[in-house]
Amino acid sequence: MDLFGVLHLDELSHGLANLSMFPYFDMAHYIVSIMALREQPGVLEVSRVSPLACWFSSMLFCFGGGVLSAIMLAEPAVAPLSNSTSVLLASITWYLVFYCPMDLVYCCAALLPLRLVLSGMKEVTRTWKVLGGVTQAHSKYKDSLMVMIAIGWAKGAGGGLISNFEQLVRGVWKPETNELLKMSYPTKITLIGAVLFALQQTHYLPLQKHHLMLIYTIFTVVNKSKMMLTGSSASPFAGIESAIYKTLFTGHSPYAALTSEEKKACINNGATNGTTSTATTGGNRVAGTNTLVSPVNGQSGLLKAKEESENAETTNCKKSK
Amino acid sequence: MDLFGVLHLDELSHGLANLSMFPYFDMAHYIVSIMALREQPGVLEVSRVSPLACWFSSMLFCFGGGVLSAIMLAEPAVAPLSNSTSVLLASITWYLVFYCPMDLVYCCAALLPLRLVLSGMKEVTRTWKVLGGVTQAHSKYKDSLMVMIAIGWAKGAGGGLISNFEQLVRGVWKPETNELLKMSYPTKITLIGAVLFALQQTHYLPLQKHHLMLIYTIFTVVNKSKMMLTGSSASPFAGIESAIYKTLFTGHSPYAALTSEEKKACINNGATNGTTSTATTGGNRVAGTNTLVSPVNGQSGLLKAKEESENAETTNCKKSK
Amino acid sequence: MDLFGVLHLDELSHGLANLSMFPYFDMAHYIVSIMALREQPGVLEVSRVSPLACWFSSMLFCFGGGVLSAIMLAEPAVAPLSNSTSVLLASITWYLVFYCPMDLVYCCAALLPLRLVLSGMKEVTRTWKVLGGVTQAHSKYKDSLMVMIAIGWAKGAGGGLISNFEQLVRGVWKPETNELLKMSYPTKITLIGAVLFALQQTHYLPLQKHHLMLIYTIFTVVNKSKMMLTGSSASPFAGIESAIYKTLFTGHSPYAALTSEEKKACINNGATNGTTSTATTGGNRVAGTNTLVSPVNGQSGLLKAKEESENAETTNCKKSK
Repeated sequence: MDLFGVLHLDELSHGLANLSMFPYFDMAHYIVSIMALREQPGVLEVSRVSPLACWFSSMLFCFGGGVLSAIMLAEPAVAPLSNSTSVLLASITWYLVFYCPMDLVYCCAALLPLRLVLSGMKEVTRTWKVLGGVTQAHSKYKDSLMVMIAIGWAKGAGGGLISNFEQLVRGVWKPETNELLKMSYPTKITLIGAVLFALQQTHYLPLQKHHLMLIYTIFTVVNKSKMMLTGSSASPFAGIESAIYKTLFTGHSPYAALTSEEKKACINNGATNGTTSTATTGGNRVAGTNTLVSPVNGQSGLLKAKEESENAETTNCKKSK
Repeated sequence: MDLFGVLHLDELSHGLANLSMFPYFDMAHYIVSIMALREQPGVLEVSRVSPLACWFSSMLFCFGGGVLSAIMLAEPAVAPLSNSTSVLLASITWYLVFYCPMDLVYCCAALLPLRLVLSGMKEVTRTWKVLGGVTQAHSKYKDSLMVMIAIGWAKGAGGGLISNFEQLVRGVWKPETNELLKMSYPTKITLIGAVLFALQQTHYLPLQKHHLMLIYTIFTVVNKSKMMLTGSSASPFAGIESAIYKTLFTGHSPYAALTSEEKKACINNGATNGTTSTATTGGNRVAGTNTLVSPVNGQSGLLKAKEESENAETTNCKKSK
Repeated sequence: MDLFGVLHLDELSHGLANLSMFPYFDMAHYIVSIMALREQPGVLEVSRVSPLACWFSSMLFCFGGGVLSAIMLAEPAVAPLSNSTSVLLASITWYLVFYCPMDLVYCCAALLPLRLVLSGMKEVTRTWKVLGGVTQAHSKYKDSLMVMIAIGWAKGAGGGLISNFEQLVRGVWKPETNELLKMSYPTKITLIGAVLFALQQTHYLPLQKHHLMLIYTIFTVVNKSKMMLTGSSASPFAGIESAIYKTLFTGHSPYAALTSEEKKACINNGATNGTTSTATTGGNRVAGTNTLVSPVNGQSGLLKAKEESENAETTNCKKSK
């Protein structure tokens, strides 16, 4: 491609494509993932009561993508465990993040500059994981774009997609939330990556693989850094999503006439049917405004996105001193 | 078989056996399945908030049997996705049923005569799916009747058997209901079909395959049509089931002495232990009558059978006009 | 090894290693497992309302290890069903335990001397199952100790590890309990066995296989018998566990300063988040004592270990007479 030649980016993209994820980038992925787990509500207590459940949860955060894509492709789900070095590295990280004397490791890694670097490195591993999934699916299902996207997505965002079952390991069960009902930013960006790499693999996208890797990696890293620095969790795709949503999914009218507040109340009633007794008392107060709110904003109070916890302040550390 | 020769049914059964399910019968299966999904409580709201979760639920309704039998046989669970044409057809159906302007497609398909035809065609696909499952299992496990029945059943009634997890995709969790605790009519008829085809495959049933296909298909189609026209959801096997139940499963006495109302209360307490706080206030009122109620009637108020929603009135359409 | 030669145990261990589990030991395993299921709260009611769900639960108790390890190794999950003789034997046992006229079978098997013998025989099958799992994993993943331990553990203690999903079959959902959060004695002893056999297989443990089988079998049988006779459910490893826990998992201080009662309250709040509304009113009463309680004792009131039900008194029988 000419533009890459002009900007001397060809070498850079080749260099990136040949980069080894092991051990530094993998390590950053483990640290950021396990810190995200630690910042979930109730996890510190579980880590005291049952170190084994905590370790298993951590492994699902680190290797969830591998486990999910293995199950989908009927390959052994224990395969990630067979890579002893990775498991050892992740286990050491888990131990240091949760049980280090004086909580040194967590507090250091939670400092903004270091966390920024680690999160950036974790985003780089996303490119490799998505590409790995797409390639693996392509070798089994030559012509199926859908399968490639599904496996690439599962491999890149597995930890989020299986979060219901990861929580179950810790004794938490929140059926009313999942990544399909309300996608978090990492899940969205991974889905977009999976679509792009699958299109590239099937030559619908006229780009070379290492060029796409460069573009996608830069986009994810820059975007993640921006989100961490500004503290915003707004999706960069909110505009596009809203437009697509309004064009495609507001066809027939009976439901569109409801106000957004009423809709939220409906969803609460429907979703938690038979499991919880969430109070939705104030649900009908604001009725009267007659606008249709897109799903991007509609449910923001209901679900806690994983990336928010990644941006969380390091108050735990301060308390512990 | 002589009877078939006499009645000139041999040609008919051969013709049926050579019938291709794609595209018309498959299409009818998708339409009826996705309409059944749409008529579940809370689904319309989910379809507005998260089209992706709604799409995924629809795919599980359409291809649930394939996914379940693939997992049971350790074949790739994404395999149904690899058939692009089917997925595309099902996705278009999903879009039209949920988001068609003026809700035209749903309202037309919900008209009784058309729905009757579509439901009949869907029943025909059941024969093919059950037979496909039994044949697939037979090719892997030559002598195991149990495996053949299990796979045939899973392939034919997969959507119902995995309904707990399909609901989870939509944020709904009803642990107290599943198709094993209270079988719906489609699940029952599929189980019977799986048993018959497995017996035929192992030559315990002295019938030719195409004859059995004809008999089973006619039985399911006629029965389904009768149920839709009379609006009854009574199982045609209620008598046999009750007889088998009374003969086999009422051996020892301590529990048999309980009244049916007390039993229901017990089940509510046991089944919902730790998840809900269902009020079972009136449970002990009718104590004194000393009859043992068969499971066919025992729990009818607790669980909503899928086929009932298929028979639901088309009130939604009227509202939307 | 000399000690074995001196004590003439070599022949004994060879004899044990060549012992066939089928049919007597397998039978004992089925009887004890299904009796343990029957003693779970609410199961008798389920056995009346839905014999099929009860049968499926029983099969998961009997063959859960095989199913779980098959899923982990991407082998057909229906494989245990393909062994017709075992399934038939287990099904007959299930029928006799639940539906035998006069409840004869359950009441006889529940008599202490017979139950003691059956439980001892069941413990013997544990050795074979763990060893089978380790060997199977070794043949696929030569060098991975982790995989061998995981598969050995899954095969030996599968029924317990999948208990959340086994309960779901019966309509029960207790997300706040699982074997990883609070291991029961059988799960612990199986994990230890899996570690030992995996170490033996990779020659880190300088013992011959049949010697280890003898030692492990004797240990499990003696220990089980002792627990049943004394009625205690105290783990023989409580001391070691407590020491390991205090050494490794009490690193940083913020949480350690909480009292055990406060911690329990935290866990209740965390674990049951969004699913139940457990009252933890008295939680802060005892605040002031400043000790750290190990997990061995910390949660003993929360979770019902499976082995307790195995030791349960036979009150049901007395009632039914």
